[in-house]
Amino acid sequence: MIKATIITIGDEILIGQIVDTNSVSIAKHLNRAGITVEEKISIGDTADQIERTLRHALQQSQIVIITGGLGPTKDDITKHTLAHFFSSAMHEDKTVAEHVRSMLEKRGIVFNELNRSQAMVPDCCKVLFNAHGTAPGMWFEDTQGNVVVSLPGVPFEMEHLMEDEVMPRLKSHFELHANIHRTMITSGLPESMLAEAIAEWEDSLPSDIKLAYLPAPNIVRLRLSTYDAASGEVAREKIDTLFEQLYKIIPEYIVGFEDASVQALIHEILVQSGKTLAVAESCTGGTIASRFTAMAGSSAYFLAGIVAYANEAKRDILGVNFDDIKQYGAVSEQVARQMAEGARRISGADYAIATTGIAGPSGGSAEKPVGTVWMAIATPNKTITRLRQCGTDRGQIVNRASAYAIEMLYKELKKEAV
Amino acid sequence: MIKATIITIGDEILIGQIVDTNSVSIAKHLNRAGITVEEKISIGDTADQIERTLRHALQQSQIVIITGGLGPTKDDITKHTLAHFFSSAMHEDKTVAEHVRSMLEKRGIVFNELNRSQAMVPDCCKVLFNAHGTAPGMWFEDTQGNVVVSLPGVPFEMEHLMEDEVMPRLKSHFELHANIHRTMITSGLPESMLAEAIAEWEDSLPSDIKLAYLPAPNIVRLRLSTYDAASGEVAREKIDTLFEQLYKIIPEYIVGFEDASVQALIHEILVQSGKTLAVAESCTGGTIASRFTAMAGSSAYFLAGIVAYANEAKRDILGVNFDDIKQYGAVSEQVARQMAEGARRISGADYAIATTGIAGPSGGSAEKPVGTVWMAIATPNKTITRLRQCGTDRGQIVNRASAYAIEMLYKELKKEAV
Repeated sequence: MIKATIITIGDEILIGQIVDTNSVSIAKHLNRAGITVEEKISIGDTADQIERTLRHALQQSQIVIITGGLGPTKDDITKHTLAHFFSSAMHEDKTVAEHVRSMLEKRGIVFNELNRSQAMVPDCCKVLFNAHGTAPGMWFEDTQGNVVVSLPGVPFEMEHLMEDEVMPRLKSHFELHANIHRTMITSGLPESMLAEAIAEWEDSLPSDIKLAYLPAPNIVRLRLSTYDAASGEVAREKIDTLFEQLYKIIPEYIVGFEDASVQALIHEILVQSGKTLAVAESCTGGTIASRFTAMAGSSAYFLAGIVAYANEAKRDILGVNFDDIKQYGAVSEQVARQMAEGARRISGADYAIATTGIAGPSGGSAEKPVGTVWMAIATPNKTITRLRQCGTDRGQIVNRASAYAIEMLYKELKKEAV
Repeated sequence: MIKATIITIGDEILIGQIVDTNSVSIAKHLNRAGITVEEKISIGDTADQIERTLRHALQQSQIVIITGGLGPTKDDITKHTLAHFFSSAMHEDKTVAEHVRSMLEKRGIVFNELNRSQAMVPDCCKVLFNAHGTAPGMWFEDTQGNVVVSLPGVPFEMEHLMEDEVMPRLKSHFELHANIHRTMITSGLPESMLAEAIAEWEDSLPSDIKLAYLPAPNIVRLRLSTYDAASGEVAREKIDTLFEQLYKIIPEYIVGFEDASVQALIHEILVQSGKTLAVAESCTGGTIASRFTAMAGSSAYFLAGIVAYANEAKRDILGVNFDDIKQYGAVSEQVARQMAEGARRISGADYAIATTGIAGPSGGSAEKPVGTVWMAIATPNKTITRLRQCGTDRGQIVNRASAYAIEMLYKELKKEAV
């Protein structure tokens, strides 16, 4: 089994100033190629700790991917530390120097000594050309054939280097087997009841197949995994068979497969049916619109979103009756219904989603506490509404209300399809 | 110096299926209390690896915080592994059992053997009551007084346990010193030129003060840090003085302080001035609206957002001239301008932000490649427009275009304030 350790470097990770998404993307790349990530480690910008962690990583894995610490400033020490670790001198790489100079020129930036230092690389490494930035990637091999790769921490640059340079080289350097994962998305059964329902099947799983439960608001994902299969084809067939069995046990609770979010399932349905969608949001503040528009191709069906935060916006843009707002409150079934219907009307969309609620931290009352959210779905035939409690924390309320409202549309579309 | 290691457990982290935000939140909590995070480690659900990593963590730190692996299903092994590590038997905790039963009853879920297992805890641990979920937190102490805390992986439950249970106990268990960080947000100077501008000041920094450069699209954050200061007050004064010096070197490039995002700076300005805001988005698809509405109190000034994805929505909702769309294209200065002005008009807001661009992956042309974004700011006095290239990847384009457009409004507000 070919194993990898991912090391992300930067004090900003250790003090919680940034969320580390680099290691997520690297883990995905490695996994898809059949490389098993043994451990992910985040450490600070200190030479000692970097060398110690690198030694630990090389004891347990044949591949080490390091990101961060390659900038031009003093707090960036990864490159020199790696040169020291591999007992290597450094030299200026002419291609990199030329590339840095031309990149900076285009942006109107003066080429100075600090930029020049970006072109210095350890003699013993192979330079990985960074077309999208000034810090080159580096590929080291030790005497045992283990590989250490150093990449810049800027996510976009790292991503391109992984895809264009690192993965092709890893695939030719190592003989890779397959890691196979398949995921089923269930909704409607809490984790413990789901586990009971599939207990017999779970107990009969072969030892090389791992089952994982991944609970999230309103859904539980079930993932079957096998690592380092000699034949990817055989392993996939085996997992497919088990997956079929699982499906037959709980067919009514399956809402999707693999990484598909519920909005991705709706995306598929709308693209194929040629129907269109609009959104009217109050408390979710644009989150539902952004979840749909984040998907490439959503312009085929997503016509418009209205974030009607002020009551006047609900009235003037969506046509909500102001007397109803006064009588029932902005957070009410009546307003949610009229928002959904208004969004359909002004956009001409076939379907509309609406949310209106109290995201907090203030604005709650005994009758309508923080977290109270009315949601509505308007279709060509009817409008349905629902009241849901979405939690106590502002971010949580926005996320849950968005997820619930999107799921409500999904269920409606599924019913119509029957 | 009191050091901590954070261990997050779950195969889903190692295969890149989820982004680990738990460790970010834990790191923030620990840092604020003066505890230095030495290392963050993510490992899989295997007993061996958990025990090995725990031993490593206890060699380098007095505090170990573990999240994940506490669910009721078979893949959750953290609790039993910790019992084994501390050579402890387990028993059923009556309070937890009662709590789990009553939580499940409210949700209409049957209490079964798996749920009952949630109430089993190692004899040697102190149970940390999880008011928001079924898996209790656990507090262990070894013979040297080191502390190991195990928390559920559900972010919301983990967060409450950290705040209500773990931090107060850590503060009374250890004598804590202060970690002080201050961050200045600069815009307008690339990292290398910024470093040149402040080189003399940087060279004169005392050895116990660390300077970090944190580049992001369009901005560079400069963070001064000192760890484990005997007197928090003295350390803060020292950092404040250095901060003042830094400010005086590059006053024209400072756009904010601490973690304040540019939208948070705008939020402050609008709340204080009583002015209002509307947003008209095409390619950014609701992201700008959601960034403002994510902030508590934004309803004071955020009136409305329009995601005008379809050309008809641009015309019918925002009043964009359809002939202009046909003549210049939806991605044009004319349309951006009319979107911003339309958003002001229909919402009655003082200011409006508009974006229209090509988020890709398709829809680009030689003249207007993917990443082309026109943005506009409408104010009571004028409308300004700008064309920017925002990258090549859909997510990156949405994020950059949002950041650039928000920054454009910020600069305008600052000019007006002068």
